[in-house]
Amino acid sequence: MTNNKEYFRLVENAIQENPFLGKPLSLYEPANYMMSLGGKRIRPILTLMACKLFGGNINDALQPALAMEVFHNFTLVHDDIMDNAPIRRGKKTVHEKWNASTAILSGDVMLVLAYELISKINPAVLPEAIKLFNETAKRVCEGQQLDMEYQDAENITIDNYVEMIGLKTAALLAGSLKMGALVAGTSTENADLIYTFGYAAGIAFQVQDDLLDTFGDAVTFGKKIGGDIAANKKTYLAIKAMELADDADKNELKNLANGNDFFINEEEKISKVIAIYNKLGVKEITEEARDKYFRSALENLDKISADTEVKKELANLAAELVERAK
Amino acid sequence: MTNNKEYFRLVENAIQENPFLGKPLSLYEPANYMMSLGGKRIRPILTLMACKLFGGNINDALQPALAMEVFHNFTLVHDDIMDNAPIRRGKKTVHEKWNASTAILSGDVMLVLAYELISKINPAVLPEAIKLFNETAKRVCEGQQLDMEYQDAENITIDNYVEMIGLKTAALLAGSLKMGALVAGTSTENADLIYTFGYAAGIAFQVQDDLLDTFGDAVTFGKKIGGDIAANKKTYLAIKAMELADDADKNELKNLANGNDFFINEEEKISKVIAIYNKLGVKEITEEARDKYFRSALENLDKISADTEVKKELANLAAELVERAK
Repeated sequence: MTNNKEYFRLVENAIQENPFLGKPLSLYEPANYMMSLGGKRIRPILTLMACKLFGGNINDALQPALAMEVFHNFTLVHDDIMDNAPIRRGKKTVHEKWNASTAILSGDVMLVLAYELISKINPAVLPEAIKLFNETAKRVCEGQQLDMEYQDAENITIDNYVEMIGLKTAALLAGSLKMGALVAGTSTENADLIYTFGYAAGIAFQVQDDLLDTFGDAVTFGKKIGGDIAANKKTYLAIKAMELADDADKNELKNLANGNDFFINEEEKISKVIAIYNKLGVKEITEEARDKYFRSALENLDKISADTEVKKELANLAAELVERAK
Repeated sequence: MTNNKEYFRLVENAIQENPFLGKPLSLYEPANYMMSLGGKRIRPILTLMACKLFGGNINDALQPALAMEVFHNFTLVHDDIMDNAPIRRGKKTVHEKWNASTAILSGDVMLVLAYELISKINPAVLPEAIKLFNETAKRVCEGQQLDMEYQDAENITIDNYVEMIGLKTAALLAGSLKMGALVAGTSTENADLIYTFGYAAGIAFQVQDDLLDTFGDAVTFGKKIGGDIAANKKTYLAIKAMELADDADKNELKNLANGNDFFINEEEKISKVIAIYNKLGVKEITEEARDKYFRSALENLDKISADTEVKKELANLAAELVERAK
């Protein structure tokens, strides 16, 4: 991400130089801990880039950009409780390092702190910014709820899945871009185009994430390959496979998911599922879907009449995210 | 609360007629369930009263008033998870009726919905309203965190306790009043006076709650008497008793709290602790403290030059809350 280093540094410095100072420490320390765990800072970078794209001053976008990152981290704190996840970015999750009550409450205060950062936006666009933030936040909650619901549901379709990842993942990326557009004071049309770009790119990004989890390179991916299969996660691949499979394959996939065969260990389960995926051509179909969303994203970006240099930066960032291990 | 019936009906109707309609239902249904459980609707009533006090149109205050009630219910949903409480207002708590993950997430979306309601305020006062709401929300989180911290801490002073209940309880009552003042567009001085009135009244209200839990009438109070003692809660009474007790009484209080004497059942524990409270005059001292905060509240209300009739309504409401079973 050579082109994005400058944005990244701006965000990272702002985070490190402005820890939350409230009291009691036991409430704000977990929030600062979470923010210090790093990550790619994609959402705030998108806010800054969109602001620059539309001729705004990126310094005016810095606080709203941080709001998007604080919001993202709030969702991670609460999601980790729900997923019972012990590790986040190689470190203990907040509920593991402290406890679930502290994680709930620190997450809550992070959501309020995100609103506080958004409130520092140019007052002329505050009503619109708050509205965008409210809509985005609701969508992310809705997506997370659907994600939980779908884990135990039957007959989830690709449409259901795309709606869910749209709400859970794409809406925040799109909202982060639109927030930058609001700061720059661009037209509603432009703000909507950059939102649609981000939404489609976000779906491509999540579909790529599904691909990497099953077909990626363990070293590049940084996680164990096959984790989604092992956990019976309803991914694009899994749903597509069930859609395409004949009755025999469907039964085998169900049996593997239900652990009906006690003689099969996790590795065997993963390779058996992948064998079915390969037979059905699920990988190629999913790659096509990813590319379709990615192309749709770029088409929306193309329609924007704005600074060409920054458009290239945004297209490059999206390409890196979506095809980061291709 | 004869004088408040009209405000109450206004709030109650608005809640019943405007359920949250988002999807998935599994996210918004728990929010509607929680809002439907009833309660005295004190916070939104305070917003409406303060708006009327300063000559505002109470219809303009209705959405912000509901925001305060939704926020309050959000805190209850999350507090109930932390307290592992099965029952709220005679019905199952959200995490009991659904599960902890749904309760976390529905609570989160309620906080966002509260911001959405606040955003419907007159745009001219939106920046101030959001700022007040952010500050209030942070204080409530800080108070809840302190409350959890103090349960396992030694040497909590009366000052610590008053600070904690100020943040956890009084700040939201005070903030609800100030929100009404903002809608009415009154002076900063008036807004600050009504805030201070609410803050002091809120502390008196919580101290009275402590008194009722130990010295109230079970029928009027609607809860089992002595629950705080049984649960070793650090109340005004408990902290004051430890402050006044000689070494022998201190030891007995500690032993009773620690359950060192296995031959004592809960009822005996409660009556033994009350006997020490009585010996030390803790009830009278706590009543004096409550009255001091209540007088201070009324003094601030008196300083406000505004509609005398509504001032009386507010004073009456505060009196009912603080001395509701005297």
